[in-house]
Amino acid sequence: MSHRSISKMEYVHVGVIGVGRMGARHARNLAGLIPGARLVGLADPDREAREQLQKELDVPLGFDDFRELVHRDDVDAVVIASPTEIREEVVRECVAAKKPMFSEKPVAADLEATRRIAALVAQSGVTYQLGFMRRFDPGYAHAWEQIRAGAIGRPTLIRLTSRDAAGPPLEFVRASGGLFVDSSVHDFDLARWLMGDEVETVYALGGCFVYPEYGAAGDIDAGVVALRFCRGGLGLHDNSRHTGYGYDIRTEVLGTEGSIQVGYLQSRPVVLLRDGRGSHDCVKDFLERFRDAYVAEMLHFIDCLRHGKQPSVGVEDGQRAMEISLAAVASLQSGQPRAVESLREPTPSDGRGAV
Amino acid sequence: MSHRSISKMEYVHVGVIGVGRMGARHARNLAGLIPGARLVGLADPDREAREQLQKELDVPLGFDDFRELVHRDDVDAVVIASPTEIREEVVRECVAAKKPMFSEKPVAADLEATRRIAALVAQSGVTYQLGFMRRFDPGYAHAWEQIRAGAIGRPTLIRLTSRDAAGPPLEFVRASGGLFVDSSVHDFDLARWLMGDEVETVYALGGCFVYPEYGAAGDIDAGVVALRFCRGGLGLHDNSRHTGYGYDIRTEVLGTEGSIQVGYLQSRPVVLLRDGRGSHDCVKDFLERFRDAYVAEMLHFIDCLRHGKQPSVGVEDGQRAMEISLAAVASLQSGQPRAVESLREPTPSDGRGAV
Amino acid sequence: MSHRSISKMEYVHVGVIGVGRMGARHARNLAGLIPGARLVGLADPDREAREQLQKELDVPLGFDDFRELVHRDDVDAVVIASPTEIREEVVRECVAAKKPMFSEKPVAADLEATRRIAALVAQSGVTYQLGFMRRFDPGYAHAWEQIRAGAIGRPTLIRLTSRDAAGPPLEFVRASGGLFVDSSVHDFDLARWLMGDEVETVYALGGCFVYPEYGAAGDIDAGVVALRFCRGGLGLHDNSRHTGYGYDIRTEVLGTEGSIQVGYLQSRPVVLLRDGRGSHDCVKDFLERFRDAYVAEMLHFIDCLRHGKQPSVGVEDGQRAMEISLAAVASLQSGQPRAVESLREPTPSDGRGAV
Amino acid sequence: MSHRSISKMEYVHVGVIGVGRMGARHARNLAGLIPGARLVGLADPDREAREQLQKELDVPLGFDDFRELVHRDDVDAVVIASPTEIREEVVRECVAAKKPMFSEKPVAADLEATRRIAALVAQSGVTYQLGFMRRFDPGYAHAWEQIRAGAIGRPTLIRLTSRDAAGPPLEFVRASGGLFVDSSVHDFDLARWLMGDEVETVYALGGCFVYPEYGAAGDIDAGVVALRFCRGGLGLHDNSRHTGYGYDIRTEVLGTEGSIQVGYLQSRPVVLLRDGRGSHDCVKDFLERFRDAYVAEMLHFIDCLRHGKQPSVGVEDGQRAMEISLAAVASLQSGQPRAVESLREPTPSDGRGAV
Repeated sequence: MSHRSISKMEYVHVGVIGVGRMGARHARNLAGLIPGARLVGLADPDREAREQLQKELDVPLGFDDFRELVHRDDVDAVVIASPTEIREEVVRECVAAKKPMFSEKPVAADLEATRRIAALVAQSGVTYQLGFMRRFDPGYAHAWEQIRAGAIGRPTLIRLTSRDAAGPPLEFVRASGGLFVDSSVHDFDLARWLMGDEVETVYALGGCFVYPEYGAAGDIDAGVVALRFCRGGLGLHDNSRHTGYGYDIRTEVLGTEGSIQVGYLQSRPVVLLRDGRGSHDCVKDFLERFRDAYVAEMLHFIDCLRHGKQPSVGVEDGQRAMEISLAAVASLQSGQPRAVESLREPTPSDGRGAV
Repeated sequence: MSHRSISKMEYVHVGVIGVGRMGARHARNLAGLIPGARLVGLADPDREAREQLQKELDVPLGFDDFRELVHRDDVDAVVIASPTEIREEVVRECVAAKKPMFSEKPVAADLEATRRIAALVAQSGVTYQLGFMRRFDPGYAHAWEQIRAGAIGRPTLIRLTSRDAAGPPLEFVRASGGLFVDSSVHDFDLARWLMGDEVETVYALGGCFVYPEYGAAGDIDAGVVALRFCRGGLGLHDNSRHTGYGYDIRTEVLGTEGSIQVGYLQSRPVVLLRDGRGSHDCVKDFLERFRDAYVAEMLHFIDCLRHGKQPSVGVEDGQRAMEISLAAVASLQSGQPRAVESLREPTPSDGRGAV
Repeated sequence: MSHRSISKMEYVHVGVIGVGRMGARHARNLAGLIPGARLVGLADPDREAREQLQKELDVPLGFDDFRELVHRDDVDAVVIASPTEIREEVVRECVAAKKPMFSEKPVAADLEATRRIAALVAQSGVTYQLGFMRRFDPGYAHAWEQIRAGAIGRPTLIRLTSRDAAGPPLEFVRASGGLFVDSSVHDFDLARWLMGDEVETVYALGGCFVYPEYGAAGDIDAGVVALRFCRGGLGLHDNSRHTGYGYDIRTEVLGTEGSIQVGYLQSRPVVLLRDGRGSHDCVKDFLERFRDAYVAEMLHFIDCLRHGKQPSVGVEDGQRAMEISLAAVASLQSGQPRAVESLREPTPSDGRGAV
Repeated sequence: MSHRSISKMEYVHVGVIGVGRMGARHARNLAGLIPGARLVGLADPDREAREQLQKELDVPLGFDDFRELVHRDDVDAVVIASPTEIREEVVRECVAAKKPMFSEKPVAADLEATRRIAALVAQSGVTYQLGFMRRFDPGYAHAWEQIRAGAIGRPTLIRLTSRDAAGPPLEFVRASGGLFVDSSVHDFDLARWLMGDEVETVYALGGCFVYPEYGAAGDIDAGVVALRFCRGGLGLHDNSRHTGYGYDIRTEVLGTEGSIQVGYLQSRPVVLLRDGRGSHDCVKDFLERFRDAYVAEMLHFIDCLRHGKQPSVGVEDGQRAMEISLAAVASLQSGQPRAVESLREPTPSDGRGAV
């Protein structure tokens, strides 16, 4: 069943693969916050977790094996939140079944697999949306619109900060691909999208300041990256696994006529004044910060399916961002600036921003 | 079916009476965001609107007459969002059917009806929660906890601002009971709740500055009220139907050791800097500002039903707040301070705050 | 020597009467920050303090008796920062000597003396500026300009907060005339000035929450006032001798097309983020908050003298504000709203704002 | 006359060399805001400007030739604000006359001259303070104290932004040494000082986005720099000659236990709300932003002289910062990261920060 026929249906019947943290989040959103969708099935070999979520959300179908879900005639579209290792396999199955996909990032476990998926999706014409949710955050989406509308003139310099309240377990770090691949990839996507340009070279530095065990595992817990864009624009990125105060995502784009800043530190709208100081609490984590973004990206996915449109963020965006991440890793290891490898040169037909 | 038996059930099956703006909001929240609830029925004589919402939210039951909904065995609890005029009638029917109620404010169209409902609910023991949603806003709830925990010492002075972006249609104003009854009632409830005390006297001033037609209809479009609490605390409230910039709800409580401020003006976390100025957008309306509060109050209602607890905000709170509103109206008309009439004196057994 | 001849002089030679906290502040400002002025003399019976300040600031003349200073031919203008009790006497002497005066507030110790001074100054034509420094604060001055330029439409409602970090010694309170006379008088002046209107009636409430000894002395340590302006505008004021967090002066004016807010809580531009919270320090006291305003008001005084202009804030403003303060005291004592007594009705020739 | 004898004097008699923008600012501050100083002389070949300033500030001595000022017995200390080209000559003269110096940055026109001055000053023992005023800004000074007190744990990452409202004239740019030497040198000094560490390597990128004429003159109008500190810390810096909104200096230091942010965008404490937006004005220029810092650094200089202390920021700090600037220029030109050349390795005896 292709997305063309979906566009004539009243509801899109969605199955979710994987009921971990992100899968459960998408399932809950689909169950209650996406008017055009019906959550009809879950697939996860962890039967206990899956059945609990099925019950909580009144989901009729449940499978151990994602293939059964993918090939059901009454499942119109699939949300992929399974472990990264099997992601390529899942995508291949969905393409075979002509099922539109919304996939959590990353596209796949490595760049080669990512490129294979990009080629496969492009050839098949099956709809694919990547979970770069920051683009759907009301703040980031508004900033992008403002930039596109010329509010800051021509974008020239971007600053991107990503920081976690506290670092993940060592096992997660080991499997994550490292700080730049796992986390900064979101910033590299924002960088491309907000600057409306491709990244040409990167120069990265890093260190282990809080979690020496990450260093022993070959990773860093904080890093910075200087970016050069194809049309000459400049960029700076910093990332840290640990802040001690909360989750902190901020971006600023300076242009020839002004600047736009996105992000916030204060969680609840309460200021306490006492003992000569004013204070407020901070944002806890990404589920809090990007709560609306996770809903908005799914609304976009369903809306695209129902109206025969292409999602605004696809597999190629994931590939490009990963290429920047890998260039940052290479720069970190070599101590030298590195060019970003690309499948092809960016062209005006990309329809990207107006720099 | 009483709420005692509900507490043993897995889900609370809820019917919503009224599918206007607030009824639809509660229905959508119940359909997607309240894990312990199942939305099973809607009642509204406006069949078209009701059926559209039934379809959107997959609601099996629909009735023109709310009585049918109330007396269904498979409806465990009722959300009352019907017009104020029939509210007393609806409550009587729910009490007769022993159905727990969540009611939009006001409790009833006038103080006499409100007092009758308060007595009826108290005698029957049927669970009743009033829709003073601000108490469930994460900001206000946190401020209240902080105050209760002694963060500002003993509360001594409260400032409450309520402002709408733009005034409602004249017909709404005519039926609303006036600015102090329709809108300030939320602030009067906050005043009681955050100060942990009852209001003893009020002095009100008002005027018509933007909407002369409100004045012709006997109302004001802006007003201020000075409040005296029973234990000596002080209060100030201002309210305006029109700001020109957005919806603006702010409260500050000063205590003997500090102060706490709740509220915000900025909507999206984006600052645009250009032409020598920094700027941001403002909050649009109460549905945006109190989006989370509407969900949280319903979670509380369902949670109370499932665990046999009394809701933290009841019909008496509605009555008290309305008494303050009416005292403000009387003060406005007489030009003199007015004592707040009460059913009874506040007593320590109220369990209210520690001033 | 009248201010007419001053306007032809290159520098205004100024003498300061009183070297207490405010006198010393004005002396230091005159010595270093007012290009058109020369500080030539100090008068204070406290010889030690006076001589120390003379030495610090290289001031040639020093007198125990202010009369000697006032009648010196080489003193062109006088800053009056002597105790309130002798203020009328000092003004009479200055008028007799035709010396332009800058006087700290209040004009005089009571309303009768204030009215006598107002009449005397008006008859004599001697230049008189009153130290309502808030009008010269860059924030308040800018807000006033914006309001006058129509930025918020027609002003309709004003909120004024004044709070001290901690209360003054009991002796000060005893001699101060009380909270509304000593402190709120600044807010009442702001109210008239920013609304461009006169206050018609006030209603005041108060209490003693932190300093019971103030109550024993017949004063309050916190109070609120509701204001009605002649053209219908509304106002709210709250004042507290104690915050526990710092010095806090904030004002907001709502108009028919928008609102303007003045004030800030954060002192140094530093935010510390740790332990899940962001925090900043608060403003300490009025000398910090209004540092620039004290300079700007003196620049205005000297500028007026050198260019033959009338100061923008005069003895009548002091009288009007004191009348509002006294009405607030009377309202507090009687429990009833009180009309503000005035020498005369406000007339269009007042040149006041455009409400 | 050495600073040892000054420490016994009541006032330090200061002469200022150069009456351009910075010289005039220092002269005005010395005339009015530095209690322990007396401004006794000015030197500048521009006689008209000098005599006007002498008159404004009542300065007795004036010279075309700075040598005359330097060698006066009644001049205890010298402020050097003369053009960079003659700075080495002026310092030599001051050293010969044993006159303590406060010098505007840069120390000298190039690194060789800077090193010669550093050696000369070190050998002579004459007191020398460099005008890195940001260290004396109340915000930066407070942040440094907090960091030293352990408020953020061990500093690990610094972000430094410097932006001008609009670029200087082309002639200024030509003589300035370029963006990194002229402007970023302040950030490089902050970086060393706040991190308590030396910069080991830099990597710089830049471009000309607003002022193509700067590019034709061999300079950039915006640049970014990634920094690596000796003990492993990371840094990011961005600088732009043009914002379109105002002057914008912000710094953030992340540590192992928290973060500290310094800087602000809002100039006057006024927020205007209308047309659905809130807005405020921005900081105009460095004279506004660092007004207090210019006073505080001079107070420190005079205080050091009077109490026989060494200024906290000296010629070596200027040399180190310039070395970083020049490394950034070299990196920009080569496209490769560059090590920072240093006179010597940093050692624990430096007494610098606790990283």
